[in-house]
Amino acid sequence: MVDTATAGAKPTPTTPLLKDELDIVIPTIRNLDFLEMWRPFFEPYHLIIVQDGDPSKTIKVPDGFDYELYNRNDINRILGPRSSCISFKDSACRCFGYMVSKKKYIYTIDDDCFVAKDPSGKQINALEQHIKNLLYPSTPFFFNTLYDPFREGADFVRGYPFSLREGVPTAVSHGLWLNIPDYDAPTQLVKPLERNTRYVDVVLTIPKGTLFPMCGMNLAFDRDLIGPAMYFGLMGDGQPIGRYDDMWAGWCIKVICDHLGLGVKTGLPYIWHSKASNPFVNLRKEYKGIFWQEEIIPFFQGVVLPKDCTTVQKCYVELSKQVKEKLSKVDPYFDKLADAMVTWIEAWDDLNPATASDKLPNGKA
Amino acid sequence: MVDTATAGAKPTPTTPLLKDELDIVIPTIRNLDFLEMWRPFFEPYHLIIVQDGDPSKTIKVPDGFDYELYNRNDINRILGPRSSCISFKDSACRCFGYMVSKKKYIYTIDDDCFVAKDPSGKQINALEQHIKNLLYPSTPFFFNTLYDPFREGADFVRGYPFSLREGVPTAVSHGLWLNIPDYDAPTQLVKPLERNTRYVDVVLTIPKGTLFPMCGMNLAFDRDLIGPAMYFGLMGDGQPIGRYDDMWAGWCIKVICDHLGLGVKTGLPYIWHSKASNPFVNLRKEYKGIFWQEEIIPFFQGVVLPKDCTTVQKCYVELSKQVKEKLSKVDPYFDKLADAMVTWIEAWDDLNPATASDKLPNGKA
Repeated sequence: MVDTATAGAKPTPTTPLLKDELDIVIPTIRNLDFLEMWRPFFEPYHLIIVQDGDPSKTIKVPDGFDYELYNRNDINRILGPRSSCISFKDSACRCFGYMVSKKKYIYTIDDDCFVAKDPSGKQINALEQHIKNLLYPSTPFFFNTLYDPFREGADFVRGYPFSLREGVPTAVSHGLWLNIPDYDAPTQLVKPLERNTRYVDVVLTIPKGTLFPMCGMNLAFDRDLIGPAMYFGLMGDGQPIGRYDDMWAGWCIKVICDHLGLGVKTGLPYIWHSKASNPFVNLRKEYKGIFWQEEIIPFFQGVVLPKDCTTVQKCYVELSKQVKEKLSKVDPYFDKLADAMVTWIEAWDDLNPATASDKLPNGKA
Repeated sequence: MVDTATAGAKPTPTTPLLKDELDIVIPTIRNLDFLEMWRPFFEPYHLIIVQDGDPSKTIKVPDGFDYELYNRNDINRILGPRSSCISFKDSACRCFGYMVSKKKYIYTIDDDCFVAKDPSGKQINALEQHIKNLLYPSTPFFFNTLYDPFREGADFVRGYPFSLREGVPTAVSHGLWLNIPDYDAPTQLVKPLERNTRYVDVVLTIPKGTLFPMCGMNLAFDRDLIGPAMYFGLMGDGQPIGRYDDMWAGWCIKVICDHLGLGVKTGLPYIWHSKASNPFVNLRKEYKGIFWQEEIIPFFQGVVLPKDCTTVQKCYVELSKQVKEKLSKVDPYFDKLADAMVTWIEAWDDLNPATASDKLPNGKA
């Protein structure tokens, strides 16, 4: 809850549900316990389920949920030749859901993520915390040692420039995971029994100029502010790499948010990640990525976007050019990925004419 | 405690006390309860007390503590004309203690800071946590979403480049405060009753390129790595400003650590900050700083140190030149401060010939 008594001049919403402004995007649902456990929290919202595997199999969604479901046939029908930019047999296909949504906010979650409890034993309403994160400003230009200054009982500390205290709009809220940590295959192999048991009661803005590993398991964002950059790349069937879909999106959105003056937060809320994926399968998927990321990170750290890139779309197309120019020499895959990035933007603008490239990131034409 | 079972290839000290390698520097002691409360934690260490006020008054240190005490007369005697760089009637004089210490590590704490309790009710050994922070590497080049990867039960997450997992040496450990938060005078005036009650169980590396407001209340550092940059400036008697001593040091050390590839951590440990200083007095001290910091921050954000600045001393002298060149136009005070920065380095090198400017930051000649 937001304490209006201490919030001063800050925005003071009574955490709205944003029922008509948020879609929940789920890459696939292999187990119905997932929806039953989230029912009290998700039932008020519209779900977009993007089925990542065989389209002939049907996902049975329990009664009471308002949802739309897309399988590969639907994606092919809706996007036509541009459907090539959407991954097949990989949860990266979830980004199709971001594209067909018509809402301002997206929350995406994996089907092996359950409701976590806070240290007092209370069930955590992850969605409510994400909404709070997105509605309050971010502070990317200077670090506040008491963390989120907009939170009840906290503020900007001595030495924090007053001109920076207004903050900037928050585009992305990256939530975390109790129980199974999001480790890569080598770390999974080395530490099969490690569990994340530490509930860290904090929300942080990731500073401008700093990259982070964005996990797609428990992620919310403002579609109007950053949607067109939330592309999860080419993974899975027919591709040389997997498990880098969210990472790729994270690196892209961060450099674009930094360029456009938007905020990215990480920390609360936690979900309970129930099932470790198979480390051997993961190692096969990640294998090339482990080498490639050593060149991808310096690339993204060096990206400079020109001043005339004033919309997310323009930034993203420019980024695709730089990917083609600088990463194609790492592997021909990046040449294909750069093309897919452009196709993605074309498809996005086609389905979202009202937010197409001529719009400013603040939502004004 | 460090869990050797899960720490993998990381350093695994059994938290050493570093009894012979650490000095505790206290700017002044107005109340003896302070030392009695810390007795179980501080008694094994050597204390350096730097008395900030009238040298004719004597501070009575209780039996059992091993200490040396310096007043203004001592500072004048030891430094001669160079004593002008040490503030008078201000806790900024504490940095004299950093200079006369012969130890590798310094812990500095204010006399209104007491032992805090963790959420389980256990007394927090702040010094032990600082030592842990300093002995384990920092990770300034990429953000780890599970926070300190060297902590028990945590590691680097998926997508964190392997080449960056070794980390860099930690130069500074910035601890926090429960109860009275470190607010500026305007915030104190607006929120007189706000208390920090949130124990955030985290240690973070402040990313490269990001500045932060460093508070001197509860601070540890590696004197060999960053000591000569820990100058607390000209504050108090005869100066137009106060309460920016630690901030100034924080901005200087951060740009130098970034340049030299050293780490700065913030978060745990907490101390219990018992007494809010008077907001009206503070407003008078801070008044000019509130304006100046709006120009100081962009200045520090833009500082570039040349490659041949390979020691802390060289970096600091170069920084003093840039201060003179770019901040003197803000106020003549900065001209005087820039000169004092050079005097400070001369005095440091005089008292510390073994670590003088010809040494590399890694401690090798």
